[in-house]
Amino acid sequence: MKCVKVGIYGGTGYTGWALIQLLLGHSEVAIQFVTSERLAGNSLKSTWPLAPNITLQSTSEVDLQEIDCVFLCLPHTLSATVAAKAIKAGVSVIDLSADLRLNTPEDYEDWYKVPHSAPDLLPVVYGLPEHYREQIRGANLVANPGCYATAMLLGLLPLAKAGLLIENMPIIVDAKSGTSGAGRKPKENILFGEVHGNFSPYSIGRAHRHIGEVEQQLEAVGVEKGLLIFSPHLLPTDRGILAAIYAPVKDTEQAINIIKQAYRHEPLVNTLLEGEIATLAHVVRSPYASISLTSATETSLIIMVAIDNLLKGAASQAVQNFNLLFGFEETTALLNASQGEA
Amino acid sequence: MKCVKVGIYGGTGYTGWALIQLLLGHSEVAIQFVTSERLAGNSLKSTWPLAPNITLQSTSEVDLQEIDCVFLCLPHTLSATVAAKAIKAGVSVIDLSADLRLNTPEDYEDWYKVPHSAPDLLPVVYGLPEHYREQIRGANLVANPGCYATAMLLGLLPLAKAGLLIENMPIIVDAKSGTSGAGRKPKENILFGEVHGNFSPYSIGRAHRHIGEVEQQLEAVGVEKGLLIFSPHLLPTDRGILAAIYAPVKDTEQAINIIKQAYRHEPLVNTLLEGEIATLAHVVRSPYASISLTSATETSLIIMVAIDNLLKGAASQAVQNFNLLFGFEETTALLNASQGEA
Amino acid sequence: MKCVKVGIYGGTGYTGWALIQLLLGHSEVAIQFVTSERLAGNSLKSTWPLAPNITLQSTSEVDLQEIDCVFLCLPHTLSATVAAKAIKAGVSVIDLSADLRLNTPEDYEDWYKVPHSAPDLLPVVYGLPEHYREQIRGANLVANPGCYATAMLLGLLPLAKAGLLIENMPIIVDAKSGTSGAGRKPKENILFGEVHGNFSPYSIGRAHRHIGEVEQQLEAVGVEKGLLIFSPHLLPTDRGILAAIYAPVKDTEQAINIIKQAYRHEPLVNTLLEGEIATLAHVVRSPYASISLTSATETSLIIMVAIDNLLKGAASQAVQNFNLLFGFEETTALLNASQGEA
Amino acid sequence: MKCVKVGIYGGTGYTGWALIQLLLGHSEVAIQFVTSERLAGNSLKSTWPLAPNITLQSTSEVDLQEIDCVFLCLPHTLSATVAAKAIKAGVSVIDLSADLRLNTPEDYEDWYKVPHSAPDLLPVVYGLPEHYREQIRGANLVANPGCYATAMLLGLLPLAKAGLLIENMPIIVDAKSGTSGAGRKPKENILFGEVHGNFSPYSIGRAHRHIGEVEQQLEAVGVEKGLLIFSPHLLPTDRGILAAIYAPVKDTEQAINIIKQAYRHEPLVNTLLEGEIATLAHVVRSPYASISLTSATETSLIIMVAIDNLLKGAASQAVQNFNLLFGFEETTALLNASQGEA
Repeated sequence: MKCVKVGIYGGTGYTGWALIQLLLGHSEVAIQFVTSERLAGNSLKSTWPLAPNITLQSTSEVDLQEIDCVFLCLPHTLSATVAAKAIKAGVSVIDLSADLRLNTPEDYEDWYKVPHSAPDLLPVVYGLPEHYREQIRGANLVANPGCYATAMLLGLLPLAKAGLLIENMPIIVDAKSGTSGAGRKPKENILFGEVHGNFSPYSIGRAHRHIGEVEQQLEAVGVEKGLLIFSPHLLPTDRGILAAIYAPVKDTEQAINIIKQAYRHEPLVNTLLEGEIATLAHVVRSPYASISLTSATETSLIIMVAIDNLLKGAASQAVQNFNLLFGFEETTALLNASQGEA
Repeated sequence: MKCVKVGIYGGTGYTGWALIQLLLGHSEVAIQFVTSERLAGNSLKSTWPLAPNITLQSTSEVDLQEIDCVFLCLPHTLSATVAAKAIKAGVSVIDLSADLRLNTPEDYEDWYKVPHSAPDLLPVVYGLPEHYREQIRGANLVANPGCYATAMLLGLLPLAKAGLLIENMPIIVDAKSGTSGAGRKPKENILFGEVHGNFSPYSIGRAHRHIGEVEQQLEAVGVEKGLLIFSPHLLPTDRGILAAIYAPVKDTEQAINIIKQAYRHEPLVNTLLEGEIATLAHVVRSPYASISLTSATETSLIIMVAIDNLLKGAASQAVQNFNLLFGFEETTALLNASQGEA
Repeated sequence: MKCVKVGIYGGTGYTGWALIQLLLGHSEVAIQFVTSERLAGNSLKSTWPLAPNITLQSTSEVDLQEIDCVFLCLPHTLSATVAAKAIKAGVSVIDLSADLRLNTPEDYEDWYKVPHSAPDLLPVVYGLPEHYREQIRGANLVANPGCYATAMLLGLLPLAKAGLLIENMPIIVDAKSGTSGAGRKPKENILFGEVHGNFSPYSIGRAHRHIGEVEQQLEAVGVEKGLLIFSPHLLPTDRGILAAIYAPVKDTEQAINIIKQAYRHEPLVNTLLEGEIATLAHVVRSPYASISLTSATETSLIIMVAIDNLLKGAASQAVQNFNLLFGFEETTALLNASQGEA
Repeated sequence: MKCVKVGIYGGTGYTGWALIQLLLGHSEVAIQFVTSERLAGNSLKSTWPLAPNITLQSTSEVDLQEIDCVFLCLPHTLSATVAAKAIKAGVSVIDLSADLRLNTPEDYEDWYKVPHSAPDLLPVVYGLPEHYREQIRGANLVANPGCYATAMLLGLLPLAKAGLLIENMPIIVDAKSGTSGAGRKPKENILFGEVHGNFSPYSIGRAHRHIGEVEQQLEAVGVEKGLLIFSPHLLPTDRGILAAIYAPVKDTEQAINIIKQAYRHEPLVNTLLEGEIATLAHVVRSPYASISLTSATETSLIIMVAIDNLLKGAASQAVQNFNLLFGFEETTALLNASQGEA
């Protein structure tokens, strides 16, 4: 008998469907509802041909009675309100939007340029299990990290914790993402005719919002704010993130060891052998992060972090968090979900 | 001194920009205006980085005084009205929309499900120069053929004229197009994330509107209507059409000779040698059609016709028509425009 | 305890790796060896980053003692010899090559232009479970169908069995495949630079070898040879086949019902609702076939059959056959293997 | 009458064909021969469908008598020998290989791990016209820069010359290239099935050979060697390079002005306006470099340099050099060659 009853808000986008696929393979989960304002009343199959026949509901139709946990795959600004309502109804929440990642309403408004719609919820546990596992276990509300932020923090947190980053030196991250990261709402810049044959940077420098959540987590372990330089790019592929992190470190050899050590027993983070370099093919359609470590000079370390933006960068990380919240083995429904590029 | 002053309605879509590129290389053409309702006031460069700085105008701002010819890259239903106005002002018109391709308002309404907005203009010369060159020369209004229709008619018209098609047998055309054929207006089905890794048929059977114009031209040379079965597909690439025409013929050898003969002296239609098969690489970014002829059985001929949907299927064919209208060498601005896949 | 010990010959190509992924998820299978001549001694992981650490062996190193079943993902001509040796050693064989698909050595030589290397094995049960399930159950040697042949026969066999195909009329199949169908051995025509932006037909008419196995199976139910006209094309994507079958039928309505009926209870063949059309997105990374049926005229039926060439066209069909041979539920390791496009 | 007679060594690869296309449009050039060892005796059209019928010759057949200039699109190690022979015969040489880019045989052997085959030719003028125009004008032998090196030096040389780079700080370049940069010789890593859906770094850190030529040019204007950290990546597209240069500068505002100043009058280098970011769409199929300048912090400048690796990174730069050598306007055959993405 399936014991945890879940609902998914926003099931027709790329993240929602990736999440539903994982939850359908989770032996302890029963999906009770999937919402979509645009397609309410239609089957999930109408927008995802490989999906089962689940009738989509509008948010207003949904009954939280008897629901144990909801996953929010909603646009930011909408998500916090739904989270607050669910928490009030005694339902656990895993929020995949950006609404609950920053610790204060002020920081949120700084980066998102709108007031926070549920400031009382803040701060929320940050759902990066490899670094905040114990806090997540005890929570009923988790902020799932941003996709780029996941890649950056997996690379940088071990160094920051160990005090190995050289002070006052810029930390440069040049990251590339497949188009699913931009969502499924039609916009000219993600049309096939615009992306095919192209490759384009956007929001470079100190502009991208994920800088906020990354620097918040780094500051908590002693790295001052303002050093991160971040250049995201749109790749001509559908999924996957590869972040090249150029970390100024006190000693590359020591830094490499610290990172290897940090993930030695992590089931979903693979540190590659010397000489290997992480690529999208290491991770696409899988819940893994793949990390390679290359010493460029004695004090310049290149950390390549590859993840599937829809999985470790969103849906499978949400399932890790869910498993921690409800006391299941953290990798349940994930290890066998490997959707390798055959 | 450039002698022909032209205006382009709808210059920010894929077809408009392809046309502008060709006209910029035409030594006898001066572009006087380019319209865009959405981007009026901005530079063409704002939407096409490689474009020159031409300020886009709204249709209402445009002055037809002193204009010799306009090209209409507008959606159907809008185009006919603009055409009528231009003709009335004594300006020649090359219409790249579907509005003027069918001979009667009734046929138009049958296929397009809306009343025709300028029925007095009909019928209009059909701008397929390889088959209607003389009529085009004397015209001041030309209906540029549809992209799929161009491919189909280049393959079928020589056989139809020669009476080589077996009567009452279905003519099957399985055609594939790059996404630029679907335009540049954002829609979910042409997002990168939907098209990448996919391949999808649409409007198959007797449903696609280009059947109307193809059967109209075939009927004029004695082929009864209703035999064409047409399956268009969306390819995961940006440009190019390949149409596989399965023609039931009285004798494949004779049919092959008739088609070779028809295009022997055509500068923009290449008939491939025996054993070669036409592919998109033969034509993409060029004004050419490439045709291969394969005898499957004694009475089944496979005609592969490849064109660039934006060039021979739209913009370069419009320039051929323009050259005919204004007495220039038909291939002016085209032969050197070959934008081969390097 | 896993009870069936299997070996895989040729594990480093696209098909081999797709098969290994499925078998790793099969609760009753233990993979005992994977061969590769080129990479013997290396880990499977060295060529497939997401693979487990299985050391590849050369064929000569392999011991068939204690092996229950082998899967042959070898080039044709090599496969039959290995099959003969395995059968002699009492090991069941599922051959994914073309070597055992034709019933006689003469037919094989006609299509493959080389003498058959193990003629005594012929004829072999043809492993298309939806049509030959009972014969497969009792076999110890199965010829897994070709990828294109699978798509064609799923569409045509129900009509042929029901006598609904019009006699003497050509049956036209225009099919498109991702590049993985061409294998992983480097060749110029499948380089990224050649395929990207291109779309190319090959071996069209009556030339492609899969015609042999398709007509053999159709002839067995009364359709004369020589009517099939088949145009395969290379798509700019990695996996998936879409075959457009233009079937001349006595009555399209009846034909549609017959096909729906044929697959009503098939777990891995989905017949779409009226108005829907099969696309690659219906099947890629899944073990399903998706079939749509469109009446073009009263006697012209368009059957679109979509499969993943590496799964239903190869590896997952091999697992269906394996399950039948060893008495497992036919869909074991397949239903949960759905690797949907998220 | 065409006055300069040229020969092209190695005309069947991507660079050779890109060069031939440009030279065919050059009014003062007559192509006298194109070599290919593999395809000697065949037409260029056999490998490039859009090419004219030029019969390919083997190197040994070629007569340098009456040739004015040769372009070498040969693999490194082969190129220098052919260059030496041509120079001896009084023929000017533009070498697109890496053989003549480094000033000393020792440097060459350091980076290429083979002895130099024509050390007497060294040092050779480095063919980056925007920075070495006067030296090129007087030369009869030019080393065409590497594709990545072109992108890096266009960004860095103005800063280096002006003394604006902070000393002892690493200069980080994260660059991405289409697959045509890897050549047309079949290899597993550039198969469509491997590149599609993937994105992969290679030779990162201090490993890639272009570091040698870049640091050589920077050292000449006072930047010490050893600071460049360079990460090239393979993009899932066919052509184009985008290099993200993270330059540590004394003052970003001043640095931006210096770079704008440097290219203010350059016809083939476009410096974008503030707020715009260079993408591949700015340059693919064009001879232009597109440069955007973003101040990340007061001392961190992000310079994005986009070029077409086959044009400004190879063939069109070779034509710039050719025009300088023979006294033509530098942009002859280039400005109208713009093969924009329509």
